[in-house]
Order: sequence, then structure tokens, then C-alpha cells
Amino acid sequence: MSQITAPDLEPGRVVADRDVALAYATDYSHGSTAPDDFLVVRARDRDDVVAVLEHAQAHRIPVVPQGARTSLCGAATALEGGIVLNVEALRSTRIEVDERYAVVGPGVNTAALKQAVAAEGLFYPPDPASSPMCTIGGNVATNAGGLCCVKYGVTADYVRGLEVVLAGGEAIRTGRRTAKGVAGLDLTGLFVGSEGQLGVVTEAVLKLVPAADAPLTALATFGSLEQVTRGLVALRADRHSPNLIEVLDHASLQLIQQVEDFGFPADAQAALLVQSDRPGHTAEDVQRYADLLTAAGAVEVAVADDPQEADALMAGRRALAPSFELKGPHFIEDVCVPVGRLGELIARAEELSARSGVDIVMSGHGGDGNLHPTVFYAEDVPGSRERAEEAFESLVDLALGMGGTITGEHGVGALKRQWLPRELGEAELARQRAIKAMFDPVGILNPGRPL
Amino acid sequence: MSQITAPDLEPGRVVADRDVALAYATDYSHGSTAPDDFLVVRARDRDDVVAVLEHAQAHRIPVVPQGARTSLCGAATALEGGIVLNVEALRSTRIEVDERYAVVGPGVNTAALKQAVAAEGLFYPPDPASSPMCTIGGNVATNAGGLCCVKYGVTADYVRGLEVVLAGGEAIRTGRRTAKGVAGLDLTGLFVGSEGQLGVVTEAVLKLVPAADAPLTALATFGSLEQVTRGLVALRADRHSPNLIEVLDHASLQLIQQVEDFGFPADAQAALLVQSDRPGHTAEDVQRYADLLTAAGAVEVAVADDPQEADALMAGRRALAPSFELKGPHFIEDVCVPVGRLGELIARAEELSARSGVDIVMSGHGGDGNLHPTVFYAEDVPGSRERAEEAFESLVDLALGMGGTITGEHGVGALKRQWLPRELGEAELARQRAIKAMFDPVGILNPGRPL
Repeated sequence: MSQITAPDLEPGRVVADRDVALAYATDYSHGSTAPDDFLVVRARDRDDVVAVLEHAQAHRIPVVPQGARTSLCGAATALEGGIVLNVEALRSTRIEVDERYAVVGPGVNTAALKQAVAAEGLFYPPDPASSPMCTIGGNVATNAGGLCCVKYGVTADYVRGLEVVLAGGEAIRTGRRTAKGVAGLDLTGLFVGSEGQLGVVTEAVLKLVPAADAPLTALATFGSLEQVTRGLVALRADRHSPNLIEVLDHASLQLIQQVEDFGFPADAQAALLVQSDRPGHTAEDVQRYADLLTAAGAVEVAVADDPQEADALMAGRRALAPSFELKGPHFIEDVCVPVGRLGELIARAEELSARSGVDIVMSGHGGDGNLHPTVFYAEDVPGSRERAEEAFESLVDLALGMGGTITGEHGVGALKRQWLPRELGEAELARQRAIKAMFDPVGILNPGRPL
Repeated sequence: MSQITAPDLEPGRVVADRDVALAYATDYSHGSTAPDDFLVVRARDRDDVVAVLEHAQAHRIPVVPQGARTSLCGAATALEGGIVLNVEALRSTRIEVDERYAVVGPGVNTAALKQAVAAEGLFYPPDPASSPMCTIGGNVATNAGGLCCVKYGVTADYVRGLEVVLAGGEAIRTGRRTAKGVAGLDLTGLFVGSEGQLGVVTEAVLKLVPAADAPLTALATFGSLEQVTRGLVALRADRHSPNLIEVLDHASLQLIQQVEDFGFPADAQAALLVQSDRPGHTAEDVQRYADLLTAAGAVEVAVADDPQEADALMAGRRALAPSFELKGPHFIEDVCVPVGRLGELIARAEELSARSGVDIVMSGHGGDGNLHPTVFYAEDVPGSRERAEEAFESLVDLALGMGGTITGEHGVGALKRQWLPRELGEAELARQRAIKAMFDPVGILNPGRPL
């Protein structure tokens, strides 16, 4: 029996079954565990959200707003003595085809939205790797990125307006539905990426763009990381932007080859995958990208002639996540550096790995300089996990030293908050805390993640 | 002799000559006049900005941060008893070609920056009509738009990070230099468009993109406004976005024809100008746009074969501003509606004009639904100006009723603040005021424009 006073809601909102509740208590982040005492509310509509935030503020109960719990930084794990406010059931979707926007509930699945707008000849570009599972509310809360940011940008670039319920239960609307608008401060942008710390999004107005073509792909392998960086800079300078530029380091290629033979040469230092989805010009673009990569020094470049072949070239990239699972316990991290420093960061990670004995695999969204270091440890070796965490801390140092950031797209959450002061500086951080305190004076909204 | 206590600055910063100071006292907005007592400081560097904001807070002196004073909403006019803080001299520019960003001072002229990056094969898209005169600081403060927003977005889409001096003189850095980054709240976006009310921008990190081609143009005339709307929706649905979609209403065409014969048929209800700058495909695109406009019902469509011809088609659009000057006293306004309602707004403006006897000319960035109503009055007729202002107020009502905004790109400033509560609602406005108060507790920064 929970010690937490429950808000007054219709039957079925508060999860009574402990096992069901436990399913809502953890997220995908490294080391996420359920606290002893917590309450799960599955909101069905905005009124439920209002009731929970009214009650929680009155009783000083921490609230963790939550969608599909795919957070990798601990932003969606239940808090001890707190309420988990799940909004997956808020799933309304309205598509305004001529005006090119959609009005959606926070519980709408990202892939489902992409599919729904595709049926209207439109495209919602943000594509975090978790798209099949994650929700728009979580995407807005983390300003989610993904594979096609290099051409299309991130979630923030597609949010025109929001409905947000604030701590205490007041609902406000921010932003606009028109293509442009500058009336007042941009509160919409402030809520996007605020990791559930300023309010709970109950509706989002999302910009849509015309559909692109099915992408074609080129895959290049390299003998040196300098060449990889040269290739990246050349691709980014092309006047028809690729919609995807992914990088796989030597360790990634080795792991992938253990899943299945994808034909990566054993001595390849790295590979770049590049795609074009430009309507009517995908074949011409990928051939040009291939030429750029050859000029940058690629050992071998394979170019897909049709979407099936393109899919086959992407198969190695898709084998990466399963290869991690086969190898053993790990956590997937997220840093971003200037694109011109990407090869150097991978080289330094290799040195770090050799020196520390910690296996580090570097892959990610090369075109943005956004890498996802995957760090392995052994559950049965004392100190192994701590050494893995220390190794990642060294990578954070390296990234910050290169003018990079501690998180390109996953968010700060609970797990990376210790580095936030270093990146922002105390002066900016003080202002961020003041904004948090203004919206949430009692401090009930996802406290400590990260503010 | 001014009653305002001057900050302690190097000689030459405080403008001593009354006539020189007067040049800094007004902006381009309707009815802008110099107050009796004000002080002008021309900052040479960040330290000057710090000194002014320290001094002003200590002495509770209002400060108007200012670039080239092209504000059309009264955001840059001097305040009675206040300091005008001009930052035009902060003009450093560094372009990072491979990383595709520029680090610039707020006084950098927008057109000059566009030219400097073009020399490196890069493109800074934001292009307010005032580009030859205006500054980046002002563009950031107003989240300036322009003609190419329909493809490239607005200033906010290009600001990665800022250095801002706050009231009291503390300087903070916001944002990042990397392509992506989500560490903490997005303070950068909060400062963009804040009209000098939260701090003074002393440096901006601006994203750049690869250069486009010199644009080609098509010009279509229409017999009905429904057809214009149909044409706009069709152009926006095209998978290769035009970089410009401008609309000119019947009254605009009449005025332009009085400047010179640009061949607009006397009975044309409206014209659309559309451009493509897509590298390698401008001719193909404008021909396709022309076909779309013909299908939408255009009476006549002219298509340019080369940049010179394209320029000739744009000549009518360029004659618009001079035609306003020839016609008489006027003010240029700014509203934005859903694109599908644009034809309707123009039709309602024509009715309003006929009913009220006030001449209203509608033109602007049709592809975004962003219109600039130009309203005329007679200086020697008592009540004429008031009637003009009333007519515009009716247009604001119409735009808001259509789900539009009181300002698409000019800002709210002093002139449109009375409508801000109606657009935002009191709940959001209260939060905006609280953010303003948090950054500027004494209320010295551009008070009343609009918060």
C-alpha cells in the first residue's frame, strides 16, 4: 500500500496492480530501477493531467511526466514517493493538409504519426532511432533528433505551438498555427527540450513538409579517420544535402561482422553511410556523394541502384544494436562535437579504450558530429561498470574540450546532470534554475532531471 | 544639458552633440518621435555594454538597445529619460567554413554578412527587406523574417548560440556551436525575438548553409482571389519548395503601374511572384510552378529564362515601396494568417477599404500567409490618421479571427502591445512578464516594448 496520497480521478486512472505499476517505473536508461514507493497515473485526457498537477503541487509530490519511457538518460524513471504521470493515452491526431501541420496528443507514437502524414503525401521528419516505440510528448520533452537531422533538423524545428499544463494545474497555450509569428517571447521553444521540468505537454502543433522520395544509399569504407573527416566535410558542403550521414568506427564494423558477414573489410578503420531522398534525384545524388567520398580517400564505395539495394546497404547499420546485445552489458551514450573534429574524437576513444581496457564502440550521426559512444562492462567483474563510467567521463572531457556538448539529442536527465554546470557555466545555469523555479515554484516537476 | 546621469565610459562613447544624438532617437516606425531628454551611447565593445547596463540598473534608467533603427513597431525609439544603447560598432565577423557557422557582432550589417559568407560559397538565408540597412543584432532581437522564409525559415532557425549582457551587466553565453545540442533549457531561443527586453546581444553564432543558385522567377496574374489561394496551396505542396512566393493585390498592382508600366493588366485582382534557387534546377522548377499557377486559374504567367529576365519580373515588386512614397503618408503593417485564408483576408481588406474610405494595400510573403497591409492617410485631413489606425485595427481583428497573428515578422514593440493579451491570453502573458521580470528585475530593458 503506497504512502502517497492519490489524486481524485475516475476509476482506472491510478494503477492498482503493483506488477502493472512496475512496468511504468523504469526507462531505457543505464541502471534504471524502480523506487520502493510510487504511484502510477495513466491520464486519459487533459483534465486528468490538470488534476494530477493540482494535487501534486498542493501535496508537494514529485511528478514524472512520461510517454513510452525510451529515455536513455534517466528522465522518465519513477521517483521515490512520486507520481508517474503517463500520457500515452492522449492520442488525438488531426492533420491539416493544406496548412501543412498536425495537431497531436503527446501519446501519439512517432512512427504512427509519420505513417499517418505520409498517407496524405506529407512528411514529419524527426526520426529518433526509438521512433517505433517513442511518443511525440517525449520527443518534444527531449527535443529529439535522429538520423535525418543533417538535412531536416530536430524536433524543435517542427513545433509551432503547444498546450502545456503547468505545476498547479493551469493550462496555457503557446506559439501559433501560422507559418510565421513573433508575438511575444518564444515559450514554445523553452518547453521543447525541457525534459518535463517546466510543464506537461498535452497537445503539440507540428509543422509538416512535402514527402520526399524513398532514399538511395552509398556505403564507403575508409582506411583512416582523417579521410572520414574529409569525407564528412565534403558531404556537408554539397549543395543538395544528404538526408542521412551515419558513421561506424572500426569496433562497430567488427561487431557487425560478428552478427553476419556484411562484407566490411577486416582492416577498415570506419565506414560512412550516406543517403539522398531528394525527389527525383536520389540516384544522381548518391553517385555524386560516392565520388566525393572516393576523392576523400575511401577504399571502397558501394552505391545502391534501387531502394532494395539501399536497404541492403543499411542492413549493417541495423545490425549494430543487436550486435551490442550479443556482446554484453553496455550503455549507449551521446555527445556532439564540431564535424571537423569527429575523426579525432573517434581516434581518441580508441586510445582510451586501449589504455583503459574498456570496450568503447563509436557510431552515430556523423553529418552532425553527433556520436553515440557505446561502452561495455562485465556484470560479474568487480569495478568493471565503474571503469566503464570513468571511461565515458573521459570522453565527455574530450568532447567538451573540442567545443562539443555533453548531449546532442538524448537529453541530460538524471545521468548527465553532473556535467551540466561545466557545459553551461554557473551564470547561465543560475538563469535556467530561475526559469524552472518560476514555472514550478514548489519543485514538483521531474526534480533533478537535470535542474 | 541632459538630466540623465551618464555611465563612466571612455571619451566618445556618449554622444555630446544634440543633432547627432537626435539621429539615434527615432526608428522607422509610424509616428516615431524623439523624447525631450535622452542620452545616446555608441558602444565600441562588450565592456561598454556591460558598463551601461550596470549603470542603468543601479540608477534605474531605461535602456533602448539599438542597431540600425529599422524597427517598424517602435521597438528602437528612444525613451524619455532613458539611454539609447547603440551597438552598430560591434562588427566583428569570423566565418568557420567547414563547420558552416559565423560568429558575428550585433552591429554587422545583414547584407554585408550575406555577401561575406557568399564569398566562401555559403549562404545566410534570412533576408528582411531592410537587409541593406539593418543589423544582425536587430534581426536576432525581432526574429526577423523576409522574402525567402517560405523555403529557409526565419532568423531563429539560424541562431545556434548567443552572448548576451543582462540588466546589471552580467554577460552569459547560451547555446552551442555544434550542429546539435540539448544540454539544458533553450535560452538562445528565448532571447531571439525578445525585442531587447531580456538582455543585449553582443555576439551571435549563426548557422550557414551551402550557396544556392541565382533564382529564376515566374510571375502570374489572377482574376480572382480564390484562384490566388489555390495557387499558393499548390506551390506549397510542391516537393521542391520555392524560395520566394510574394503576393501583390489589385491596389498594389495599380500603384506599381503608376510608377511605370510593368504590364500588369488593369483588371488583375492579384499577382503572385514565385522563385526557385535550387542548384541546377531553377529553370525546371519555375516552369513547373508556372504550370501549377496556370492550373490554379492564372490569367497569364510569365516565366524568366535567365537571371536578368527574372530580375525584370521582380522589378514590379521592387517598385512597390517607391509607389507608397509617391502616394502619400502611410504605415506598413504586418499580420500572418493560415495560407488557405490569405485570399479571404485580402478580399475582406478590400471591403473594409471601400466601407471606410481608407486606402489599404495588401502585399507580402504569400507563401507564409504573411501580409504587410499598407494603410494610407492624409496629413492635412483631421481624423484621417485615426481612421487609418482604426481600419488597421479591424484588420487585426480579422487576422486573429482567422487563427492568425498580430505580427508575422516585425515584432510587437510599442505600437502593437495593446493586442498582445488578445493573441496570447492572460495566462501565457503572465508567464512572459514573469520571465521578463526574472531577467530584468528593475525593468530597465526596453520597458513597454511590449512587456
